[in-house]
Amino acid sequence: MIKAYKNPPKNQWESLAKRATNQEQDITATVMQIFNAVKTEGDTALKKYTQKLDGVAITQFKIEEEQLAQARVSSALYKAMKLAATNIERFHSYQKIQRDPIETTPGVNCWLKDVPIEKIGLYIPGGTAPLFSTVLMLGIPARIAGCSEIIVCTPPQSDGQVDPAILVACRLVGVKSLYTVGGAQAIAAMTFGTASIPQVYKILGPGNQYVTRAKELATQFGMAIDMPAGPSELLVIADDASIPKYIAADLLSQAEHGSDSQVVLLSDNEKILIEVNKELALQITSLSRSEIALNALNNSFSVLFSSIAECINWSNYYAPEHLILAVKKADTHALNVINAGSVFLGNYSPESAGDYASGTNHTLPTSGFAKNQSGVNLSSFTKQISFQEIKPDGLNNIGPAIEQMAMAEGLDAHMNAVRIRLKDLANV
Amino acid sequence: MIKAYKNPPKNQWESLAKRATNQEQDITATVMQIFNAVKTEGDTALKKYTQKLDGVAITQFKIEEEQLAQARVSSALYKAMKLAATNIERFHSYQKIQRDPIETTPGVNCWLKDVPIEKIGLYIPGGTAPLFSTVLMLGIPARIAGCSEIIVCTPPQSDGQVDPAILVACRLVGVKSLYTVGGAQAIAAMTFGTASIPQVYKILGPGNQYVTRAKELATQFGMAIDMPAGPSELLVIADDASIPKYIAADLLSQAEHGSDSQVVLLSDNEKILIEVNKELALQITSLSRSEIALNALNNSFSVLFSSIAECINWSNYYAPEHLILAVKKADTHALNVINAGSVFLGNYSPESAGDYASGTNHTLPTSGFAKNQSGVNLSSFTKQISFQEIKPDGLNNIGPAIEQMAMAEGLDAHMNAVRIRLKDLANV
Repeated sequence: MIKAYKNPPKNQWESLAKRATNQEQDITATVMQIFNAVKTEGDTALKKYTQKLDGVAITQFKIEEEQLAQARVSSALYKAMKLAATNIERFHSYQKIQRDPIETTPGVNCWLKDVPIEKIGLYIPGGTAPLFSTVLMLGIPARIAGCSEIIVCTPPQSDGQVDPAILVACRLVGVKSLYTVGGAQAIAAMTFGTASIPQVYKILGPGNQYVTRAKELATQFGMAIDMPAGPSELLVIADDASIPKYIAADLLSQAEHGSDSQVVLLSDNEKILIEVNKELALQITSLSRSEIALNALNNSFSVLFSSIAECINWSNYYAPEHLILAVKKADTHALNVINAGSVFLGNYSPESAGDYASGTNHTLPTSGFAKNQSGVNLSSFTKQISFQEIKPDGLNNIGPAIEQMAMAEGLDAHMNAVRIRLKDLANV
Repeated sequence: MIKAYKNPPKNQWESLAKRATNQEQDITATVMQIFNAVKTEGDTALKKYTQKLDGVAITQFKIEEEQLAQARVSSALYKAMKLAATNIERFHSYQKIQRDPIETTPGVNCWLKDVPIEKIGLYIPGGTAPLFSTVLMLGIPARIAGCSEIIVCTPPQSDGQVDPAILVACRLVGVKSLYTVGGAQAIAAMTFGTASIPQVYKILGPGNQYVTRAKELATQFGMAIDMPAGPSELLVIADDASIPKYIAADLLSQAEHGSDSQVVLLSDNEKILIEVNKELALQITSLSRSEIALNALNNSFSVLFSSIAECINWSNYYAPEHLILAVKKADTHALNVINAGSVFLGNYSPESAGDYASGTNHTLPTSGFAKNQSGVNLSSFTKQISFQEIKPDGLNNIGPAIEQMAMAEGLDAHMNAVRIRLKDLANV
C-alpha cells in the first residue's frame, strides 16, 4: 500500500523527509483584504464575510448565556468529555512551576515568574467536523494558567447555529465568551477588536489554510500564535514485538485526517512492514473516510533500517508531529528521542489516546517544526518575567564588575547608574 | 527635560503607550535579495556582501582555535566577565525543570520533558560597540540547556578582525565555532547553511534593522527566533522614597542606547518628577553619548498618577521591556506586575545590573511584546516533548471515552485504533 525504501543513504534523507507544500499564493491577498475590512469596518465587515463565506446572516455574534447553559449532548458523550477533561486538567496542572528567588551573589536576589497572558483567543473549526476536543485541549490549560479573559470564535453551521458539542465543551471548560464567527475574519476580529469581539494577545487553535495564513498575518500586528500549522503526521517505529494490525489501525487513524496527511513506518524487520501493508489494505475498506485515507497513504512510505537505533536517528531527522514507539524497551529508546511533538510508547498507546483523553495535548508542531517548537502546554498560556532585588551590599559586590563591563562596551551612563550609588554607599 | 502628563483619561492611554515605528519599506527588498544570493551562491555571496557592506575582504569566515585561545582583555575586565558569567550561570541553572511522569488515570502515564534545541545560532553585533555581554547572556543558557551545536556570527571590524572581548567571552562560554560575518547575510547563512557556516534551528541575538528584518524573514523558512525586536525601553515608577539622582541616572542609562529609545517615569508625587528632571539636565552634560540620550529624552515623558497602584496599572498597559519599582514596599507592588520584560525592585537595583552581572537575562521583549512574550531564559533553548505510556488496564479505563469522542467527531479510524486493541484485551 505504501512506498517502501531500504536503508536509504544519508544524501537521500533530505528529500525523503521533505513535506509536501501546496501554498496557494492568492490566499494571502484575500486574507489581507479581510484584515483591512475588519480593521476599518469592524462588525459590519464580519457580517458581510459571514454572509459571503458561510452563507449565514448573523445579527449577534455573541452566544447568549442561556443558549450555552441549555446545550446538550448524549450522556455517553458527556461522560467521555468529562473523563477527558479530568485527565487534561491533571496533566496540565502538573506542569505548573513555582520558583523561589535565588541569591546569585550575596545581596543579589533574582527570580523568574510565570505570569498568565491576560487575553487569549481560541479558534475552533466548525462545519462538518466540529472539533469540540480542541476546546478542551486549549481551554483547560488557559484556565489553569490563570488567563483572565478567554474567548472562543467558531464558525456557524449552515443553519447559523454552533454544534452543541462545542457549546458543552465550552461550558465544561468555563469559557463564557463564545462568538459565532469563523475564518480569517474571526482571526482579524481578535487581532484588532470590534464592537462585538474583544482584542486578544494570543490566538491558538487549528483551522483551514485561510485561518492559518490569517494567524501568520496577525503576528505582524503584535499577535502571538501557538505555532505554524501544516498537515498532520505520524511516524511509527516497529520491531518484531509490535502487532501489525494495531500499527495499521494507527497509521489509518492519522491518514483519515486529510488527503495531505503523511504517515511513515520505520522498522528493522521487513516481515513487519509486509504484514502492516496487508492490514492496511484490509482495514481501509471499512472506513467512512477511506478515500481521504487512501490519498494520504499515497503520500506515505516505509523505510527498513538495520536497527531500531537507526530508526530513532532518522525519526529525529524527520521530527514527526506524532511518534509511536511500538518496540521492545520503548522507554529506553524514548530517551534518545530529540525531535518530536508527542511520543507514544508500547503497543497500547495509540495516537487516538493523545488526541482525546490521556491528558497530553493534541496541538502539536508539524512539518519538522518539532526541531525548534513545542506542542501546546501550560507554558503556551504564560510568559516568564524576571525580577531582581539588589541590597546595598549586593550592589557593592557586583557593582565594580558592572562598571568594568559598561566601560568596555562604551556605555558610560550604564556605568554611572552604578557609580552614583556606590559613591553614596561608600560614604555611609 | 521630558514631556509631563497628569492623570491622563483612559481614552488617551492608547496614544500615550504607542511606540514610535520607523520601518523602512526598502529594507525588506534588500534583505530578500541577500537571502536569495546566499541561498544560491553560499560563501561566494557572503564574501561579496562582506566586501560591499563591511568593506572587508574575508577569505576564511571561521575563526581559528588558536586565535580564540590567544585573545586577551585587561585582567579587570576578565574578572568582571567571570563574575557576570557565574551569576548568569546560577540564574539560568536554577530554571532547570525535572518532571516525573504523572498517572492521569490508573495505567496511563504521561510526562513532559524539556529537550534542548540541537543547533543554535547566536548573532552578536560588532563594529563600534562590540556586545560581548550578549555572548554571555545567550551562550551560557544555551550551554546549560544542553544544545549540542552553538555557533556565533559577528561582523568584522574595519581591519577584518573581531574585538578581543567577544573572543574572550566566547571562550568563557565554551563556544568554539565563531564566524566573522554579520548583517542579513549572516542570518541568511545560518538559515540555509553554506560550505563554511552550518544551518541552525534557532537564531537569537540583537542587531540593526537589517538583522531584525532578516530574522523575521528567516521564520518563513522554518527558523525559530528569540523575539521580535524594537527600540529599548525603561519605565520607572517612583514615590517619595526614591532618590531623584538615581532615577535620572537609570533613565539616562536607557536613553544612551539609541535615539529611538524611550524612557517613561511614573509617580504619585509631583515633586519627584520635577527633581528628576533637574537631575537629568545636570547629568546628561557629562555623558559621551549625550546627543543620543537627548534625542531619546525627546521621545520620552513622565506621568503623574493619583497612586502607585494606578502607576502599576498603567505600566501593565504599556508593558515595558524594563521596569524599575523605586518605591516603598516594592515587593508587594511587584506582585501586581502583569506585563513587563524584567523588573527591578528598590533603590539599589539599577537596570545596568540586569544588563550585565546580576544573573538575569538582558534579551527582553520591547514594543509592548511583554504582553505575550518572555525574555530569553533557559526555556528559549529547549522545546517540550510530551510522552505517554499506556498499559492494557489504562486503555481499558480510557478507551471507551476515546471511542465516544472519536465517533462524535466523525473519525472512525481513530475509534478503530482503540477498538481493535480493546477487543483483544477483552479476549485475554
